Amino acid sequence: MKALLDAVIFDIGGTLVREAPLGTAIPDLLVEPLGNAESDLRALGETVRIGAATDTSVMTEADVRGLLTDSGIAKHLEAIATSADVGAPKPDPATLNAAMDRLGLTQRSRVLYVGNLDIDEQAANAAGVHYQPIGADGPLAAVTAWLDAHAGSSFRAAVGAVQPINAPASAAATERHEQLTKPSGALGRVEALGIQLAGMSGHAQPPEPFPAAVAVFAGDHGVLDEGISPWPQAVTAMMVGNFARGGAAINVLARLAAVDVVVVDVGVATPIDPHPDVRFRNVRRGTRNVATGPAMTLVEARAALDVGADLAASLVADGYRCLLTGDMGIGNTTPSAALIAAFTGGDPAVLTGRGTGIDDERLAHKTEIVTAAVRRANGSAPLDVLADIGGLEIAALAGYIVGGAAAGVPVLIDGVIALAAAVTAEQLCPGVREWLIAGHRSTEPAATAALTYLDLAPIIDLDLRLGEGTGAALAYPIVRSAAAVLRDMATFSDLGIES
Amino acid sequence: MKALLDAVIFDIGGTLVREAPLGTAIPDLLVEPLGNAESDLRALGETVRIGAATDTSVMTEADVRGLLTDSGIAKHLEAIATSADVGAPKPDPATLNAAMDRLGLTQRSRVLYVGNLDIDEQAANAAGVHYQPIGADGPLAAVTAWLDAHAGSSFRAAVGAVQPINAPASAAATERHEQLTKPSGALGRVEALGIQLAGMSGHAQPPEPFPAAVAVFAGDHGVLDEGISPWPQAVTAMMVGNFARGGAAINVLARLAAVDVVVVDVGVATPIDPHPDVRFRNVRRGTRNVATGPAMTLVEARAALDVGADLAASLVADGYRCLLTGDMGIGNTTPSAALIAAFTGGDPAVLTGRGTGIDDERLAHKTEIVTAAVRRANGSAPLDVLADIGGLEIAALAGYIVGGAAAGVPVLIDGVIALAAAVTAEQLCPGVREWLIAGHRSTEPAATAALTYLDLAPIIDLDLRLGEGTGAALAYPIVRSAAAVLRDMATFSDLGIES
Repeated sequence: MKALLDAVIFDIGGTLVREAPLGTAIPDLLVEPLGNAESDLRALGETVRIGAATDTSVMTEADVRGLLTDSGIAKHLEAIATSADVGAPKPDPATLNAAMDRLGLTQRSRVLYVGNLDIDEQAANAAGVHYQPIGADGPLAAVTAWLDAHAGSSFRAAVGAVQPINAPASAAATERHEQLTKPSGALGRVEALGIQLAGMSGHAQPPEPFPAAVAVFAGDHGVLDEGISPWPQAVTAMMVGNFARGGAAINVLARLAAVDVVVVDVGVATPIDPHPDVRFRNVRRGTRNVATGPAMTLVEARAALDVGADLAASLVADGYRCLLTGDMGIGNTTPSAALIAAFTGGDPAVLTGRGTGIDDERLAHKTEIVTAAVRRANGSAPLDVLADIGGLEIAALAGYIVGGAAAGVPVLIDGVIALAAAVTAEQLCPGVREWLIAGHRSTEPAATAALTYLDLAPIIDLDLRLGEGTGAALAYPIVRSAAAVLRDMATFSDLGIES
Repeated sequence: MKALLDAVIFDIGGTLVREAPLGTAIPDLLVEPLGNAESDLRALGETVRIGAATDTSVMTEADVRGLLTDSGIAKHLEAIATSADVGAPKPDPATLNAAMDRLGLTQRSRVLYVGNLDIDEQAANAAGVHYQPIGADGPLAAVTAWLDAHAGSSFRAAVGAVQPINAPASAAATERHEQLTKPSGALGRVEALGIQLAGMSGHAQPPEPFPAAVAVFAGDHGVLDEGISPWPQAVTAMMVGNFARGGAAINVLARLAAVDVVVVDVGVATPIDPHPDVRFRNVRRGTRNVATGPAMTLVEARAALDVGADLAASLVADGYRCLLTGDMGIGNTTPSAALIAAFTGGDPAVLTGRGTGIDDERLAHKTEIVTAAVRRANGSAPLDVLADIGGLEIAALAGYIVGGAAAGVPVLIDGVIALAAAVTAEQLCPGVREWLIAGHRSTEPAATAALTYLDLAPIIDLDLRLGEGTGAALAYPIVRSAAAVLRDMATFSDLGIES
């Protein structure tokens, strides 16, 4: 739930407890919880924050809390706002807003209000938060129903917003390269990169794609049970801690490239200690084992896509003008090879690589798993393939890629994990590849297959196979340079030479 | 002369004019110039500044200037210092120091004193400037004799100072890479680069090679008479102006990479307007045409080597910790291909490329010229080959490369011109290649031959063929990153993991 929601706010009468007849005096009120309200709230409280916003003509928060104490419900409600406290009953959003203020919530798109009346829905709409009517099955089922219906909507919106890059701007940049003080074509592929950036920005002299952020999506993989990696699952969480403390390779390389690092727990198995620099968007504590069944449900896949799409939108809203992909997840070369094989039609025996460096025996077993996963997914729709194979960080990256393209900024792709996400993104959103720049060529064989499929030429080729966004960070200064050349170089006419 | 000297200071009596008998009263002094003093000074004054420092018990500068006016000598002496003015006769250096102060000279290694007595030589030694006795052939011949004897001495000293890189530090860096929070070898060639930087710095955790400077050596080529380039020679000088104004590709790329640009006129044919950011070290206004004879004399080649070696030493003294090579010279792919073919034994027909983009006919003619130059140079000593083939900026780059290695800093090599210089440097100073990092692989075929000969793996491969140091500047952030990884990444034991 944490992936898409920070908090759920409940109406009380008719939602958590049976509605008292209008005008019942406080001493006469009998609290009768609806369904499994107490246990549902306890379960919900493990991943999201919970508050209440209720209409009452006379009761204060203390009165309501007192009434709900015996049922065990009060202790799950971090904040309770009443219309008596704020002086404006629903459909006025004042009570809901007061509850959110008390919880310190700022992102209304990450808040759900659950109620039972039309005025509850009207209040939610007025407050700008999501709404779900309570059903016969109680609070947990209502929230789950909302998630089932809502997961994937951010991603779908992003897919709909992706535009082709601006061909006239690219053509104008091609022309401008001929006027700059250098022989025609002498800057080689840096010129091609500048032309692509011109198309993305809509300007022949594109602004430098700066500032930039690298989002490192972390997730775990049930397939680790198959012994496909020498590293234990706990290393994923330890590395998230390392990212937060600034000690990982991506921190060092991003600092030098002036790229900000954003760490996202989208699917780490081990609980992560809270840290101000780590965003908790955990969809599930690791995928299921792809060797024994689908790695994710469709809803989980959609939620992870949304996590990425939402983050991309929020980074661009914060002013970032280039998004770099990063990833961390012990075992994640296995689903990456499988996704790339499934979507490109490549041979799993060729595309499965040694990841962090496994021996022949492990590689043979890993190849069997990839082969079986590809066979099982064969012929399914792209979203089903993604859900079946996994993983959560790959799905989030696919959402992030589409989200970046939808926001009109270049997305700089790292290694094989990011390329698996890019191939998936292209399947889910054909044409998104125009917005992608390949940072480097990983030594993993599936990386080259994906680059070919996407028709991307990697900027650097230094035998990297680390992930985290390291190859993208190393390539980023060259991307920035490609824009600067078009923007800042003198032309021959500036020097008084006829070109 | 400007290549090695800023100024020549002359003794007067016995050096520029016949010595008067001791005790001759001022009104009785007869000024009799020695040899062609006046015309010699006029010729010298075209490239260096001229002053005088003379012993006299009674005369002031004004007295001396008055006496030398009729002979035409006075007007060539920008400053005249007398021992009567400073109160301390030679061998005290006070008079010489006063003359240098008047000329605003700060680099004593770029000042020559010419005299006729032992006390002149003693004063020069005490002042820390070079000394040359006046000979029978007058001032110009004396300066020329000094240059003939002195040219190449900075370069020779640099060759003598180059040490092997520190193998234990490289071994310790190799070991440290195994402890960092990443799979073994996962940073690929970035790890190898870090190990090399460790060896150069003598530290397993090398400091970032920062700050960095790119020296752009500019020179012209007599071979342009053969029509091997579509660009006129004047473009070299125009591009020097473009560098000075910050409008060239290297300016843009160096700014983004935080690299300072230093421009050096070591052999431009067209006079360059004085500019504070351009160093005038012109050895000759362009080389001779290699198609019709040797491009340079041995003294010119040695002087150009010194220009590069001196600049490298001075940049490292100024605090720079990484030197990037840059070049500008219309026509310079011709001598570059010839030098690489001559030194690597490669086939000129294979190694001659299209440079800025010439047609088949020009390429065929260029190949003939390269082939003939290689045949003529065949079997000569490396310095003779360099002088025979040219060019001035390539010789300066060879000196700069050796100078950087001698000062113990990494030298980041650009494209085919720099690689021709690097191959030459390795011939003149075997082992210097340990200090080199190849920035990129130029599309010129000779570049790949040189990389193979030097056993260097280029960092980037983006089809560049511009020169100026552009490929080195694009690669520089990756070099810096390679050091930062070793220095700043956490180890597994920092995370509490047994690696």
